[in-house]
Amino acid sequence: VDDECRHIVESFWRAMNDNDFQGAGGLLADDFVLDYPQSRERLRGRENWVALNQEYPAAGRWSFQVHRLIVENQQAVTEVTVSDTLNQFMLVSFFQARDGRIQRMIEYWPDPFDPPGMRAHLVEMPGGVK
Amino acid sequence: VDDECRHIVESFWRAMNDNDFQGAGGLLADDFVLDYPQSRERLRGRENWVALNQEYPAAGRWSFQVHRLIVENQQAVTEVTVSDTLNQFMLVSFFQARDGRIQRMIEYWPDPFDPPGMRAHLVEMPGGVK
Repeated sequence: VDDECRHIVESFWRAMNDNDFQGAGGLLADDFVLDYPQSRERLRGRENWVALNQEYPAAGRWSFQVHRLIVENQQAVTEVTVSDTLNQFMLVSFFQARDGRIQRMIEYWPDPFDPPGMRAHLVEMPGGVK
Repeated sequence: VDDECRHIVESFWRAMNDNDFQGAGGLLADDFVLDYPQSRERLRGRENWVALNQEYPAAGRWSFQVHRLIVENQQAVTEVTVSDTLNQFMLVSFFQARDGRIQRMIEYWPDPFDPPGMRAHLVEMPGGVK
């Protein structure tokens, strides 16, 4: 089961990196749901998901670099850097699979923030992460 | 191995929810490293980590609600809501364990954002998430 879920998520990011949004959409369940906890938006259905990706403004081709993939049974999470050649974004995605497709995703898009001065004496700057 | 890592992470959040930062710090490896990709800060060492938590301003007791825990071998990730009774924050934490302790963490603190108008026709508002 872990291997199946891993394969689905890897296929998803490969299709995304090919900018093949129809192909990635083919990995989603008919009753697919995507939640954005930061804005409390909920997107339902493969067609809306494909449209969102096709309509989203981009400076160039999208690339998706997967830094981490953790899989347990039918659940997975990825830590990804997204770029449209001009801008770069961080993305953490939780996946729930069912019957060989992605039934649910939860996406977090964390923005950069300035280091809080109050903990400057406790940290190094800039920390290398990847 | 999964069970050991799961137990460590569950113990960590239990100690955090008790506001027992010394106890949580006892679950960290001697060469513990915590990265904040959003600010590019890096914190090293148990003592700095305990100090950061003790010094951090709070309106009241901290509570930590774990919504999701995904474990694979020595890696884990949690999706958590943090509150100091006044404010609430989202937190996604990646864990790397080694020899029964947490050797590395990567923390994302995603802030709320306004729903982008460009996708208003594709989503529901407000989406229920948890």
